[in-house]
Amino acid sequence: MSVATNPLRDPRDKRLPRVAGPCVLVLFGVTGDLSRKKLLPAIYDLANRGLLPPGFSLVGFARRDWENEDFRQIAYESVKAHARTPFREDVWQHLSEGMHFVPGEFSDPGAFDALAMAVKELDATRGTGGNYAFYLSVPPKFFPQVVEQLQRSGLADQSDEAWRRVVIEKPFGHDLKSALELNDTVHRVFPEESIFRIDHYLGKETVQNILALRFANTMFEPIWNRSYVDHVQITMAEDIGIGGRAGYYDGIGAARDVIQNHLLQLLALTAMEEPVSFGAESVRAEKAKILSSVRSPGEDLSLSTARGQYAAGWQGGVSVQGYLAEDGIPKDSQTETYAAIKLEIDNRRWAGVPFYLRTGKRLSRRVTEVALVFDRAPHLPFSHTDTEELGQNALVMRVQPDEGITVRFGSKVPGTSMEIRDVNMDFAYGESFTESSPEAYERLLLDVLIGDPPLFPRQEEVELSWKILDPITEYWATQKGLDQYKSGGYGPNSADELMARDGRAWRRL
Amino acid sequence: MSVATNPLRDPRDKRLPRVAGPCVLVLFGVTGDLSRKKLLPAIYDLANRGLLPPGFSLVGFARRDWENEDFRQIAYESVKAHARTPFREDVWQHLSEGMHFVPGEFSDPGAFDALAMAVKELDATRGTGGNYAFYLSVPPKFFPQVVEQLQRSGLADQSDEAWRRVVIEKPFGHDLKSALELNDTVHRVFPEESIFRIDHYLGKETVQNILALRFANTMFEPIWNRSYVDHVQITMAEDIGIGGRAGYYDGIGAARDVIQNHLLQLLALTAMEEPVSFGAESVRAEKAKILSSVRSPGEDLSLSTARGQYAAGWQGGVSVQGYLAEDGIPKDSQTETYAAIKLEIDNRRWAGVPFYLRTGKRLSRRVTEVALVFDRAPHLPFSHTDTEELGQNALVMRVQPDEGITVRFGSKVPGTSMEIRDVNMDFAYGESFTESSPEAYERLLLDVLIGDPPLFPRQEEVELSWKILDPITEYWATQKGLDQYKSGGYGPNSADELMARDGRAWRRL
Repeated sequence: MSVATNPLRDPRDKRLPRVAGPCVLVLFGVTGDLSRKKLLPAIYDLANRGLLPPGFSLVGFARRDWENEDFRQIAYESVKAHARTPFREDVWQHLSEGMHFVPGEFSDPGAFDALAMAVKELDATRGTGGNYAFYLSVPPKFFPQVVEQLQRSGLADQSDEAWRRVVIEKPFGHDLKSALELNDTVHRVFPEESIFRIDHYLGKETVQNILALRFANTMFEPIWNRSYVDHVQITMAEDIGIGGRAGYYDGIGAARDVIQNHLLQLLALTAMEEPVSFGAESVRAEKAKILSSVRSPGEDLSLSTARGQYAAGWQGGVSVQGYLAEDGIPKDSQTETYAAIKLEIDNRRWAGVPFYLRTGKRLSRRVTEVALVFDRAPHLPFSHTDTEELGQNALVMRVQPDEGITVRFGSKVPGTSMEIRDVNMDFAYGESFTESSPEAYERLLLDVLIGDPPLFPRQEEVELSWKILDPITEYWATQKGLDQYKSGGYGPNSADELMARDGRAWRRL
Repeated sequence: MSVATNPLRDPRDKRLPRVAGPCVLVLFGVTGDLSRKKLLPAIYDLANRGLLPPGFSLVGFARRDWENEDFRQIAYESVKAHARTPFREDVWQHLSEGMHFVPGEFSDPGAFDALAMAVKELDATRGTGGNYAFYLSVPPKFFPQVVEQLQRSGLADQSDEAWRRVVIEKPFGHDLKSALELNDTVHRVFPEESIFRIDHYLGKETVQNILALRFANTMFEPIWNRSYVDHVQITMAEDIGIGGRAGYYDGIGAARDVIQNHLLQLLALTAMEEPVSFGAESVRAEKAKILSSVRSPGEDLSLSTARGQYAAGWQGGVSVQGYLAEDGIPKDSQTETYAAIKLEIDNRRWAGVPFYLRTGKRLSRRVTEVALVFDRAPHLPFSHTDTEELGQNALVMRVQPDEGITVRFGSKVPGTSMEIRDVNMDFAYGESFTESSPEAYERLLLDVLIGDPPLFPRQEEVELSWKILDPITEYWATQKGLDQYKSGGYGPNSADELMARDGRAWRRL
């Protein structure tokens, strides 16, 4: 039952803010980019908002010769540079008193014994009650070592009243087979309910708002189906290249890096039926149902998929090099930096409505959005020329940047004839709420510490997503040659042709 | 057939702007407020936009000892003060050369003979082709005299190729009986297709956009019915008092002055079915159908209507007097300055959906809008407290000021719980179009000169509107005592109680 673990169903919810109970958060890979730019600032922001318990403790673990003070200094700099909320000396002082560092290799049992001693001491001195969350901000190849060491040292023990949770980040494997193996590894030590898989997109306000928009309102759900929707476009475009991620990215590519997790999760939230409640079981059950109903349309994947690699070009007035010229990328790499796929959903609500997913690097701008594009009106009692500039209605959920909702519809052009043209109606998060939005990691870290899992994909969703993607990546592996697209542009021609074959076009980036 | 007279159906529409052919416009009551503030500036604006023919001529008729030059000077001042488009000397020169003045009483046959000679001379000298539009910007009591004189002098003659049209302004009577009499008077001289009844609201861009919004789009029409709409509110609130209109207003009141024409026309456009085309016959047929389906709900009009009179108060920081203290108002006047009525529409689309209409003077602000208020979602898979601040969805067509569309819906409040609150999504005419909107009178005068009648209510609509209103005003006439409401406020308590009895509330003014 999800009800017990879901404070959203607790009627005292609003009077009692969701606050974490006593616990220790252990951060593996604390020297990495994610820790410095996202996790440490998010922990400070949670403390600043009063959502962490007084005795909350944070233990960093990494292969560095650091003292506690070094760790605090690094954390201090990272908080000063990246925290969302204002810096308050007293909050920082209190938080940093609970910060400790344990140096060590993942292969070194002694280091984990030291870690176990450190957290037990925190239980004794700061009342953290034996509740531990282990955040594995490390490459997946280290997962087996780390979880085994956690087990061996007793840190993962699930036998007492206290909780022991593990947090893992994508990639959850690189195909179904490796995902199953990874899962086996983690499951040998942690039960499913103690595993929190982070897809940080699900922590974004705008992504959560998809469910609020659909199910708290009357206006949208009646048209949210095949009777009115012509097709759906889900886009995550980046303007940056691979940066320093060559080692991770090459061989993985855009589809595995983005579509398997972020875009298929967006698809699930957009297309799923109303859940019984917002408890984890209910929401995950609906997401699993919709992912189970997805299929690639047609046998011929050359017609329903497209991919490409960025070539040299101009971005923001700067000349940039192509993917194959990036440091660490083999000159004959077949890794796609752009992927577009067309999917269909075999159920009563969506049959016949294609979902077009695309993602790419080095595109003209950074934007993530879900757009429902509606059918044309079945009949227009206007003359043809009056409606020449009238497109299809669209409802666009802008995930980032410029978070909000746009509705595109036809309106009369001022003047003495009935000419109609598309206009936008707009809702901007930033303008409507004085509250600034918490970062995705604030929300997700708090959920981990509270033990509230609706925003974390469970293993079943990971597997279903790979089942959708595997045939496509396997097909691509058999194809030679990759479309090149100019950096700073709109992606490869083959992606435009994919849409053109259906008589449609991508929304302008 | 409407097609022939409806240039909206002409495929050349966009390439050939709608331009009036050769004609003379005769303005009766040219010294009045409407002429100076609206009609003369609108004529100039049409000329400035190149929509009047080269020989266009304007003849003023009034009981003044003016020469042509005096008329031109008055018109010049009015254009300088009130025209929408920039003043251009050459346009003005050209227009003023076609301006003539004929002095006279409405009772004086000689004056009309002089008028007839004047327009015939214009036909000869300026090529106006015998096409005349007579704009009766005079109190209705003069209509019989004027139309009879037009007939007697041959000016209304319909026997040749040229056209002769008459334009009349509301009030079209003060009840069904007087409306029928008025109509008989005009019909004795002009056939129905030559009568243009002006409800200037129908010339407003935002009012015309109601039809574009509904019928050029896919998103709105599916929810535009009793399955999703809880009720509709149509509001015209004024912040001013009766000003200098005591003589006209007292004995007429808010319901006859505003509800009978503007608000019932807004109701018709909001509620009607899709017309076959935007030709006059089609649009008017649908409006007549919907007005025929309207009934006052229940026998007890004390429960479905409310009215009031403004008392002294404060408006814009200025102390203002009550209605009974205004110059020219009898101290025991029972004329309402605020009226609210609840109507139901007996058809398949709207059965059970009340339409609440309200209008009043000296209210807190000036606003005209049509708001569709939707049912609550049938089920909310959220906890109760999360949705405490969630109201009903609404789609608001803002007629004036701040012309545009607002959609109110529930959105997630930024933060770490699923709290939902109402927000607004907005489309503003002024921001979306660089074109500035023509004034209602520009559009309507041009339609008269072109002979394009879709925006003019025909006699049937006038009669149907009085049939709706007569039982209400008759009931009020039997009731003693009128609610007073404070100037600068929100109207009488009885109007709030009308809504409260149905478990609803007026939208905040």
